[in-house]
Amino acid sequence: MIRTSFNIIVRSCYRASARSRSVSTSTSVMALQQPPWHPPPRQLDQPVLKIFNSLTKTKTEFIPSHGSHVKWYNCGPTVYDASHMGHARNYVTQDILRRIMTDYFGYDVHFVMNVTDIDDKIIVRARQNHLFSQFRDSATTFSIDLLSQVNEAWGSYVRENVSKGLPDEEKPSQGEEEIRWPRIAELAQDGSRKLECLKRDEKFDMYFTAANRTLAALEAARQALSANQINGDTALRLVDESRDILASALDEKLKDTVTDPSVFRSLAAYWERQFFKDMERLRVRYPDTVTRVTEYVPEVVEFVQGIIKNGYGYEFEGSVYFDSSAFDLSDRHDYAKLEPWSKGNRELLAEGEGVLSSASGQRSAADFALWKASKPGEPSWPSPWGPGRPGWHIECSVMASAIFGDNMDIHSGGIDLAFPHHDNEMAQSEAYHECGAWVNYFIHTGHLHIEGLKMSKSLKNFITIDEILQRFTARQLRLAFLSQLWNAKIEFSESMMAGEVKSLENFFTNVRAIVSQARAHEDQSYGEHRYNEAERELMKSLYDSKSTFRAALCDSFNTPEALKVLRDLVSRVNIYVNSPGRKTNVGVVEQSARWIGDMLRMFGLGEGQTSEIGWGQEEEGAGGVNREETLMPYLRVLSSFRDGIRQLAISKNDSTVKDILKLCDKLRDDDLVSLGVALDDQEDGKALVKLVSPAELLKAREEKRQKLEAQAAKKAATAEEARQKRLAKMEKGRVPPEEIFQPPNVPGGTYSRWDEHGFPTATGSGEELSKNQQKKIRKDWEAQKKLHEEFLAWKREQDSGAGS
Amino acid sequence: MIRTSFNIIVRSCYRASARSRSVSTSTSVMALQQPPWHPPPRQLDQPVLKIFNSLTKTKTEFIPSHGSHVKWYNCGPTVYDASHMGHARNYVTQDILRRIMTDYFGYDVHFVMNVTDIDDKIIVRARQNHLFSQFRDSATTFSIDLLSQVNEAWGSYVRENVSKGLPDEEKPSQGEEEIRWPRIAELAQDGSRKLECLKRDEKFDMYFTAANRTLAALEAARQALSANQINGDTALRLVDESRDILASALDEKLKDTVTDPSVFRSLAAYWERQFFKDMERLRVRYPDTVTRVTEYVPEVVEFVQGIIKNGYGYEFEGSVYFDSSAFDLSDRHDYAKLEPWSKGNRELLAEGEGVLSSASGQRSAADFALWKASKPGEPSWPSPWGPGRPGWHIECSVMASAIFGDNMDIHSGGIDLAFPHHDNEMAQSEAYHECGAWVNYFIHTGHLHIEGLKMSKSLKNFITIDEILQRFTARQLRLAFLSQLWNAKIEFSESMMAGEVKSLENFFTNVRAIVSQARAHEDQSYGEHRYNEAERELMKSLYDSKSTFRAALCDSFNTPEALKVLRDLVSRVNIYVNSPGRKTNVGVVEQSARWIGDMLRMFGLGEGQTSEIGWGQEEEGAGGVNREETLMPYLRVLSSFRDGIRQLAISKNDSTVKDILKLCDKLRDDDLVSLGVALDDQEDGKALVKLVSPAELLKAREEKRQKLEAQAAKKAATAEEARQKRLAKMEKGRVPPEEIFQPPNVPGGTYSRWDEHGFPTATGSGEELSKNQQKKIRKDWEAQKKLHEEFLAWKREQDSGAGS
Repeated sequence: MIRTSFNIIVRSCYRASARSRSVSTSTSVMALQQPPWHPPPRQLDQPVLKIFNSLTKTKTEFIPSHGSHVKWYNCGPTVYDASHMGHARNYVTQDILRRIMTDYFGYDVHFVMNVTDIDDKIIVRARQNHLFSQFRDSATTFSIDLLSQVNEAWGSYVRENVSKGLPDEEKPSQGEEEIRWPRIAELAQDGSRKLECLKRDEKFDMYFTAANRTLAALEAARQALSANQINGDTALRLVDESRDILASALDEKLKDTVTDPSVFRSLAAYWERQFFKDMERLRVRYPDTVTRVTEYVPEVVEFVQGIIKNGYGYEFEGSVYFDSSAFDLSDRHDYAKLEPWSKGNRELLAEGEGVLSSASGQRSAADFALWKASKPGEPSWPSPWGPGRPGWHIECSVMASAIFGDNMDIHSGGIDLAFPHHDNEMAQSEAYHECGAWVNYFIHTGHLHIEGLKMSKSLKNFITIDEILQRFTARQLRLAFLSQLWNAKIEFSESMMAGEVKSLENFFTNVRAIVSQARAHEDQSYGEHRYNEAERELMKSLYDSKSTFRAALCDSFNTPEALKVLRDLVSRVNIYVNSPGRKTNVGVVEQSARWIGDMLRMFGLGEGQTSEIGWGQEEEGAGGVNREETLMPYLRVLSSFRDGIRQLAISKNDSTVKDILKLCDKLRDDDLVSLGVALDDQEDGKALVKLVSPAELLKAREEKRQKLEAQAAKKAATAEEARQKRLAKMEKGRVPPEEIFQPPNVPGGTYSRWDEHGFPTATGSGEELSKNQQKKIRKDWEAQKKLHEEFLAWKREQDSGAGS
Repeated sequence: MIRTSFNIIVRSCYRASARSRSVSTSTSVMALQQPPWHPPPRQLDQPVLKIFNSLTKTKTEFIPSHGSHVKWYNCGPTVYDASHMGHARNYVTQDILRRIMTDYFGYDVHFVMNVTDIDDKIIVRARQNHLFSQFRDSATTFSIDLLSQVNEAWGSYVRENVSKGLPDEEKPSQGEEEIRWPRIAELAQDGSRKLECLKRDEKFDMYFTAANRTLAALEAARQALSANQINGDTALRLVDESRDILASALDEKLKDTVTDPSVFRSLAAYWERQFFKDMERLRVRYPDTVTRVTEYVPEVVEFVQGIIKNGYGYEFEGSVYFDSSAFDLSDRHDYAKLEPWSKGNRELLAEGEGVLSSASGQRSAADFALWKASKPGEPSWPSPWGPGRPGWHIECSVMASAIFGDNMDIHSGGIDLAFPHHDNEMAQSEAYHECGAWVNYFIHTGHLHIEGLKMSKSLKNFITIDEILQRFTARQLRLAFLSQLWNAKIEFSESMMAGEVKSLENFFTNVRAIVSQARAHEDQSYGEHRYNEAERELMKSLYDSKSTFRAALCDSFNTPEALKVLRDLVSRVNIYVNSPGRKTNVGVVEQSARWIGDMLRMFGLGEGQTSEIGWGQEEEGAGGVNREETLMPYLRVLSSFRDGIRQLAISKNDSTVKDILKLCDKLRDDDLVSLGVALDDQEDGKALVKLVSPAELLKAREEKRQKLEAQAAKKAATAEEARQKRLAKMEKGRVPPEEIFQPPNVPGGTYSRWDEHGFPTATGSGEELSKNQQKKIRKDWEAQKKLHEEFLAWKREQDSGAGS
């Protein structure tokens, strides 16, 4: 029926010209032409995207240099430790901006991010980990030598680190650290003093805590030694409690011995993986391109050579420095475009140079290392200036240039990188390319502070991403960040996480319910789709909201304002829906809710991988995209349950049926619980299947287990009581009736004569027993006879039971 | 640890001004200011969106009138029958344009579509269905009266419909229809003649077929009557075979009796539901707003009044007509802006006026109905001109005005609606609003032809959406449409569906495999992320592709060109991946594939409900969004399997184990097959679980079944053959050995004497048998003895078997 030729014939796209219909003769010739058409007037007052540009500290219109292609470089992490809330603030915020640029404004963004996997912090951390782990492996037995090694390390640590935070008159000199420690501890506890210490050295608390811990371990080891209670654990305990102090001492002494490059590589690789795992959990999109310093060292060398050639760099003892004066004096260049007021700020510059550098060889305080000669115990690569490694700032210049060349549209990073890192990075690149503007728009995301302070491990206000995600969802976190300006400083508090997610979820749940109810009663809905005044108003609100939302994002990504637009629309829809005396027009409600949901998803708040590679599996029925990922855990449970049943059936052992029931219970109580599936067994043998939260199921199972255990314990206690009672009774029956009226069962001398059944016939004093006494004795005798028989039977039972 | 205050303190967003760091004293005062920044030069040669505008027949730049808000009205379906490929072409293509505008260009599109639920076609179809169904319910017994009713209806039908297609000299007059029928049939079969007929009346084939069918049923009924073989079915068969003819005759006679509005309403409601179901299967997004004519009748009345008031309409006998001359003569207006050459084309205008209208009362041939007086048997609403209903064209004017007012950005529809519908619609609206341009951009989607002809039920080239989706997927169909210009005429053929989907799927599968392999070996991947020459080239291709893709879509939505860009990039990636001697840089491959997938999804080719209401369920682990919908079918299978096992175990019958294995097989071979889950049993008892296409699994199962059946059939045939052989053998053994040498087992006269064992001792002629003869006889006797014993045993077995 359908023609199966391979030719697709496309006819003229303009129907009228191909028509053979006759034109009415009454039509004038003029009418054969269309009347003139005038384009609608161009609107010139529309918002355009402006971005707060750190190069001007103002909002400037965003003009991309290559059509819709936006070249964007973002400063990535130095990978040597777990990511924390500060990282979350940075990368989630940058991800939000990236999504707005890509998914809302429709730019073809090329988002490049580096990973700093060569750095002094990485080198020191990797070496210390390595040396400490070597030391610990060898510290298997306790020795006086170990004790004195730790003691010595402790003394140096106190002098070098703790002392820095103390007033001069309180600093201990060599040998008197332990004697002065109680006074140091007193000062550390003193709030007013402490504030002073902190000002001087923000790491004081961390140093003090480490030293205090080691000192306690030292004292414990000494006591054990003098009490002769040394055992296998003494050495390990001492070593572990002195970790920080020993690692630092060992590194000081043995760093030269660390020559294997994989020591540094594997630490960086590990933390890079952790970083991207955290990012995935925060729903931060993976960069389009990731660059690692270790993969670009030859380019770094070439780049440094270029800078020297252009007259902006010089070598000194195997290191190469940037000649900031030469650069700044050049007519073509400006040094420190972002923060000219920070030029030559030694403190900030020193931070950038790293802990392993000495300042020797720089011609000016503002000069910084492009290439660092590596000392023994530091990774190195060959270069014309001898073995060395890239300086920190050069890597971004080199890698961004490798991808983008001599210009990019956007460079982003945390505000703390603005100087010296970004200023030096720009200077280097402009020195190499001899260009005027390497970066067109520099954008800096704001800090995150906790209790008024920048987060830092030493301040005990350090929260890892893993920790925060145990308490809040990625959605809550992102919504909190969205409700602040991207370049504002955020004062983080739990209250930031409150409320909003729940209220939005309620809104969507309500709308979904309204829509699905309307669909179910579609036939009766005639007449309810009409736009009356209320509907026209709500619809106007919707399109006004879209326009205000756009204006907010054009205003340098004002997400708090954009969120407010969404919230206001939610309120309007709620008011419309809840107005009495009117049938709800589902269409306009659905349309509004759909847009609100789409915008939240655009911000990265949505679930579901909408941008996985490909276009999803085309299959009827199933949800598509994530089918494999979603289903497989369940299918594995199903399949292995079936496997078990089959094996049982095939092996046909006697207890098959019991084992089958056990498998059924295991499926319900173990396997499916963690998958969030509840099977409620029903009387008709058909279990009710429910999809619920795994956490709730686990909780319910735990409660059930505890209840059953309590019941079992109570039952066991009752049974034990009964057993004890019976034991006592049996013990009483052990005596044959003929012996119960004789010693030792009655005190000697109670009776003086007995008959052949063991009945006493006379009292101890020889008097005959009264009739009543005899009667009672006979009764007791009978009772004991019965009890004894019972005992004998029980005894036989016990013996045979023991014998079997 | 985290401060729990309710205040979120946002500090100055500009860090430097809040800083307390000291500025180096060596810095000059000048350096405290940032150097001037120059915005990047604005690129003026970037493509802008141009749309082929039917109002100019050229590509004109798209300028929206209200910022990013785009008001778009699309002509929806008249709901009275199943949707076909022509609808698919229209609505899928419009959906593609809408997605590009919304998801690619980022416009805030408000997409409104009407549903025509008042229309002459609906009225006639609903009335005929209703009257026929009434008639059929009453036609429970056969009668002469019924026969003559059908006969009469047939005659009228032939004269009124079939005759139209015949040359004048062949048209039968009343009463001679049946006599002339053989000649008519001869003409109908004649190819050359047929073409002529078709030209005159394209429905000839349909009319002829219906008449022929009824005539056959009439003859059959007459024969049954004369052979006295009337039974219960005779009446029903005659009625059903005459459906079209009877419905038309009944409507002619009884239409006035149909007064219940629900007759018309329920037909429209049914087909509207079917239409949106089909659209959902084609992944056409639901409009933002749906308007139904029945819901806007008061507005129609008000609108018509407005047109009259402005001097462009007049009433005649309860109907109101548009005064096209008054309109066209006005300085402010032009009539038929889209197709001025079609002005006054009677044929086209008549089509627009509907089958129930008479042209009486119009002042000019170009005038058309705004409001139609309803005759009895036609639904009606009150109006100043008496009971009536809206004309076809007015509904779109009214509803689009109700939503958008006196101007919209885009109006779309199929090309066959351009004149008169869209021209009349515009004229009406401009007459009512007294505005110059009601629609800024009019876009018309091209026709779909099959075998060179527009699809139509009467041409037998009618394919419903349901039929096409049984043969091809929605993705194949959409891809076929995407590979043509939206406003081109498509010559549909099966070859359009070939190839592309599979090759794209292979591409994505390969890239996913490469990426997942790389992730699995992440630690070893150091050094493979570097951009060398090949990577830089591929990356350049990617961003060049993005820019060419944009240019193609700006060029009036040139999707064939845009698809070509994607295909070319696929080739480039494949070449890169398959180049020998180089490690693949996963990043750039993934980036390219991701973008290609995103663009396909943007075109509506993707799976997964990315725009459901809300933002998805936030749940750990599971895929979110559709968890319940996706999982429940599988969980039900799992649970009912477990139910079965439990019941077996509880009931403990003897064949438990066998039954368990049966359940296991049922799960694998029945339940899971339709869910697209393959369980491959392995030797170790642990089945391999695979998610595959249900269709493939069903096919494999069917093949396996056929193979098994063939084997079983072969086995059965062999067994039957053996049984027959044995039966023959047993039959032979039925004769006791002593009888085999006597008649009737040997012809009488073969022998003349026998001994006591039945051995013949003399030939028929009395001669004694030779030794050899005796030997042979003895041998035969022995063989028969054995056979007879075997027979007796078999007989006993048979008898006892039959008796048991």
